[in-house]
Amino acid sequence: MPDSSASAPRPAVSHPDLLARIDGPADLKRLTLDELPILCAQTREFLLGSVQQTGGHLGSNLGVVELATAIHYVFDLARDRCVWDVSHQCYPHKLFTGRRARFSTLRQTSGMCGFTHPEESPYDLFHTGHAGTSISLATGLALGSAHEPRPPHSIAVIGDASLGAGVAFEALNFAGASKQRVLVILNDNEWSISKSVGSLARYLSRIRSAKVVQRAQEEIHKLFHAIPVIGEKVDRTLEDMAEVVRHTLVPGHVFEELGVTYVGPIPGHDVKYLVENLERVRELEGAVLLHVLTEKGKGHPNAPTHPERVHGVKGAPRVAGADSSKLPGPVAASPKPPGPAYTKAFADTLLKIAERDVRVHAITAGMPSGTGLEQFAERFPARFHDTGITEQHAVAMAAGMAKAGLRPVAAIYSTFLQRAYDQVFQEVALQNLPVLFCMDRAGLVGQDGPTHNGVFDIAMLRTLPNLTLCAPRDATDMRRMIEMALTLNGPVGLRYPRDNCPGQERIHASERREMAPGKAEPLLDVAPQERSSAVCLWAYGALVNQALEAADNLRQRGIDVGVVDARFAKPLDEELLGQHLATYRAVIAIEEHQRAGGFGAALLEAASRALNVRAQVKVLGVPDRFIEHMTTREEQLAECGLDAEGIERAVRSLLAPQRVS
Amino acid sequence: MPDSSASAPRPAVSHPDLLARIDGPADLKRLTLDELPILCAQTREFLLGSVQQTGGHLGSNLGVVELATAIHYVFDLARDRCVWDVSHQCYPHKLFTGRRARFSTLRQTSGMCGFTHPEESPYDLFHTGHAGTSISLATGLALGSAHEPRPPHSIAVIGDASLGAGVAFEALNFAGASKQRVLVILNDNEWSISKSVGSLARYLSRIRSAKVVQRAQEEIHKLFHAIPVIGEKVDRTLEDMAEVVRHTLVPGHVFEELGVTYVGPIPGHDVKYLVENLERVRELEGAVLLHVLTEKGKGHPNAPTHPERVHGVKGAPRVAGADSSKLPGPVAASPKPPGPAYTKAFADTLLKIAERDVRVHAITAGMPSGTGLEQFAERFPARFHDTGITEQHAVAMAAGMAKAGLRPVAAIYSTFLQRAYDQVFQEVALQNLPVLFCMDRAGLVGQDGPTHNGVFDIAMLRTLPNLTLCAPRDATDMRRMIEMALTLNGPVGLRYPRDNCPGQERIHASERREMAPGKAEPLLDVAPQERSSAVCLWAYGALVNQALEAADNLRQRGIDVGVVDARFAKPLDEELLGQHLATYRAVIAIEEHQRAGGFGAALLEAASRALNVRAQVKVLGVPDRFIEHMTTREEQLAECGLDAEGIERAVRSLLAPQRVS
Repeated sequence: MPDSSASAPRPAVSHPDLLARIDGPADLKRLTLDELPILCAQTREFLLGSVQQTGGHLGSNLGVVELATAIHYVFDLARDRCVWDVSHQCYPHKLFTGRRARFSTLRQTSGMCGFTHPEESPYDLFHTGHAGTSISLATGLALGSAHEPRPPHSIAVIGDASLGAGVAFEALNFAGASKQRVLVILNDNEWSISKSVGSLARYLSRIRSAKVVQRAQEEIHKLFHAIPVIGEKVDRTLEDMAEVVRHTLVPGHVFEELGVTYVGPIPGHDVKYLVENLERVRELEGAVLLHVLTEKGKGHPNAPTHPERVHGVKGAPRVAGADSSKLPGPVAASPKPPGPAYTKAFADTLLKIAERDVRVHAITAGMPSGTGLEQFAERFPARFHDTGITEQHAVAMAAGMAKAGLRPVAAIYSTFLQRAYDQVFQEVALQNLPVLFCMDRAGLVGQDGPTHNGVFDIAMLRTLPNLTLCAPRDATDMRRMIEMALTLNGPVGLRYPRDNCPGQERIHASERREMAPGKAEPLLDVAPQERSSAVCLWAYGALVNQALEAADNLRQRGIDVGVVDARFAKPLDEELLGQHLATYRAVIAIEEHQRAGGFGAALLEAASRALNVRAQVKVLGVPDRFIEHMTTREEQLAECGLDAEGIERAVRSLLAPQRVS
Repeated sequence: MPDSSASAPRPAVSHPDLLARIDGPADLKRLTLDELPILCAQTREFLLGSVQQTGGHLGSNLGVVELATAIHYVFDLARDRCVWDVSHQCYPHKLFTGRRARFSTLRQTSGMCGFTHPEESPYDLFHTGHAGTSISLATGLALGSAHEPRPPHSIAVIGDASLGAGVAFEALNFAGASKQRVLVILNDNEWSISKSVGSLARYLSRIRSAKVVQRAQEEIHKLFHAIPVIGEKVDRTLEDMAEVVRHTLVPGHVFEELGVTYVGPIPGHDVKYLVENLERVRELEGAVLLHVLTEKGKGHPNAPTHPERVHGVKGAPRVAGADSSKLPGPVAASPKPPGPAYTKAFADTLLKIAERDVRVHAITAGMPSGTGLEQFAERFPARFHDTGITEQHAVAMAAGMAKAGLRPVAAIYSTFLQRAYDQVFQEVALQNLPVLFCMDRAGLVGQDGPTHNGVFDIAMLRTLPNLTLCAPRDATDMRRMIEMALTLNGPVGLRYPRDNCPGQERIHASERREMAPGKAEPLLDVAPQERSSAVCLWAYGALVNQALEAADNLRQRGIDVGVVDARFAKPLDEELLGQHLATYRAVIAIEEHQRAGGFGAALLEAASRALNVRAQVKVLGVPDRFIEHMTTREEQLAECGLDAEGIERAVRSLLAPQRVS
């Protein structure tokens, strides 16, 4: 037994290494209450050391060390179910569930995932990364076991920013009424990186300070005792008052009105107090919200002064609601010097256009930094709108702004725009309103994996009438494309990856083909008389650069290959495509997107309508499975055969049978 | 001038026909306050007469007669902006904006739309039909005019059921904090067809009764006056109390906490009182919620006793949040006796399976009747879950239920599943959980038009790994498909249209091909030696029947045509397709879905991978534009070339050039 009298939060050197003994929740449960603070301190030290090496979400995980410890201590997660919202704050949970040794591989190729992942551990129930759904999931789990004599507990741990997502409200509204036994633990960071937005955030902040309420709570009883009995009428009034007071003096009465029993707020870094409270709320029936106040980055020396340094370290990508890292720029695999990040190319362009066009407003749904809009926000605060993690509202609001004559630019990651698909359909496309969607992180995103890969947007948007879809291959075309998009009288979806633009551009801006919907740009041509045995690569967006690299390599080996920057997935340049279909031996569509329904499908559809087709059409894209996280986007591209080498292989294999004959 | 002393709500015969004078809002504004009740009574009479002839949303429109009148009286909608949520309650608004003469064409082909539609009138700002986005739109409109010296007013009229949608909460949360001047008029029906679900509904109901609060409001002042001043401490307490009271005695303090000024509840059928209140709230700054109590079906003789007869009359289809019509069954254009509605075939099957499989739970998002689940709800109340208009929560909750071992069946219209795309992606597909999505109204829906056409689901879902997509051609396959789906260990999307199953089935159940993923069923074959000049129709879902009819007609004229029921859009039967691609002259994919990215695209993609392709592949589907409402689905199919005749035309035109040569 360790020395249980040592309950100081910081471990002295003399403390035994409790963390090293935790190979599963059962080991944690064997600790005494007094040992828990030691474990927490050791966990915090471990995370500080480990995550600063590997990169990852440091701040949010430092903030939930005590909470994760207490949850594992009080509940039996072999049976009870805990859903971590977004799940970027799951590192302590992973530490306590047998994955300590894997921390050195965090978010690396074949390494431990940065989110909960059922394939890693039976203690990880869902693989998530988008915010706000944990309450629905926990409610579903509770419903699924409601018939059991002693159903397991269902717990959702959700951050204050995620609680602003519409789906979280829908779930609270349902859980409160349905009487399911669901424990919602609101992990309320006392500070967050991007300032919280929305009234809910202000409400929570009022609860936190809540001096008025606390003072009233103390004094109200005295008051009641001081009032002389004035008669029956006042007696009844007092009854009413009691009702009034019940609603008001509970700080979380908004939640209470939604049928959810509110407990809190309680401090989130006193692990013993947390254990005590969890044991108490564990016994409550129905939906319960336990409001826990935590500090992101707790225990990090920089936390109070440089919060942004603590949140995501070593340029790690961000998740919904957790927003801090600098503009993305993973280490380029290519030896060539990289250009600016696509994000930066977008942001710089928008800033310039906004200077001369007052109709341009920028909208983000909780990602001011990730989308590169921080400078815009500083320069044009009245024309910058951060709606919080509310993509649905952001898109519908953009439609209203467009209707009123503005030119709203909604900068939303490809994967998060999925949340607003119906608003893109109804509020924007059906009304044919000029909203420009700038979809960052379109394609494979590296360390965040399948929850963040943006590989569905083309299929999702291409079926919607009125939309124009485009993607730039470099910084120059980013500028020209955005300028063009803002002149159109309908909606535009523009996608670009989490990567850097090429450092060297092939063609000078002044020599490029006009930028207009349905105008592709041929970059490498094959002489007409050679085409019947040649392949033409039609690439979309950033992969044009991989296609060019592949073509260069192939040409060096005597294989003449055409390259077209398709620029538009909708409308396609059917004129140029028609010429190529009629003359080339094969056309290969190349896209950083699922092979189904995307840019390649658009080419196949156009080919099915074309009158004169001699070319085979092949599609290179992401295969029909979820692509796991890897250290870099380049590795993921290679895995999918979308790097230059993969494209070369595809060309060779297409030409191979003919060469044999 | 009419007799202004006549202010009785019911018009006497002697009243002049005020309604006949209203050709635009300016005419309405010229009326005296005392004439408004007369106009309302005449409007109500007009609607009762007209909508009972044409069919349409009667109940919700009878409920907003006074509200629409007062809004047009107080605001200048030539300048101010009013967004009607869902907009099925826009008939009085349409009456007052110059469309009286078009009411006889309501929801008919080329007739007046049942929703607001900008192409009909400049007073209709958006064409909507999905619930909950009006507050976002109004906020966007306000932002778009915020720079103007005297910006127009932005108004959203939203029902209590729509307010439960997550996007509405997101918008309130934003509007409350952003200080934009937005007036949200909560049209709170005292009864609704499906009983309201969720805690918000209970909260609103408590406000409506709110006896405690009202009584307290009267008495509290007396109390304060009766308390003797006991000293400084209590003085401070009284200050605190004042704060407490402010929050509590305002019935809508949940809204107040969200930063929204709450006014109400006020009765919604006293038009003069409404005018007075609208004039008052018009002057308020920031976001304001005016809570108006109305009665759906107000003034209809059946309203109090048979609410469901009043809501949507003459079998008119329903919209989000407005749920009543009987199972759909539009008049069949075909002379053959129709079979049961697909909805009923689904519901009957599910009921039977649920009898023997306790794991089967049914989920609907506010559409218990439209999805045919009313019987299920009665028979298995504990296994039936109506979440309200909250598709996101419904789908995520289903994922939780599946994870806990249940077999949840989420019955959600194709078009409304768009709202939950991200949850289908993350919570269901990425986890590979066995949730069965039964997508009713997949395809063209007739009178509701583009907001309700379900023509995007295949493209939306097909790109997601792990999903199986299928569609039955008749009642027998509906049963077999659902039975099969519930044996799979991953998610399934099953679609069917708003129509009846064929009355006569071609093949007896016992003689059909095994129902398993990736197994298509050939229905009409062409002899191998004839195939090189023949066409094979690969149809998906209900259109198999149109394909069969076309093939029968063509065969009668000596044109031999193959027909395959593809059954699965994912996985395709690539084996059978490969044989057909290698032998037929052409394969035509037929789908009730946009031509882009759907079932036809899947065929094209498979063909691009096939080794031996002699067949041309063509796609028949919905063209790249929004298909307006028409009297029947059949007309819409014909418009898109998807009826038997259109399919015949496509086959002939494909064969024509060869025949000429």
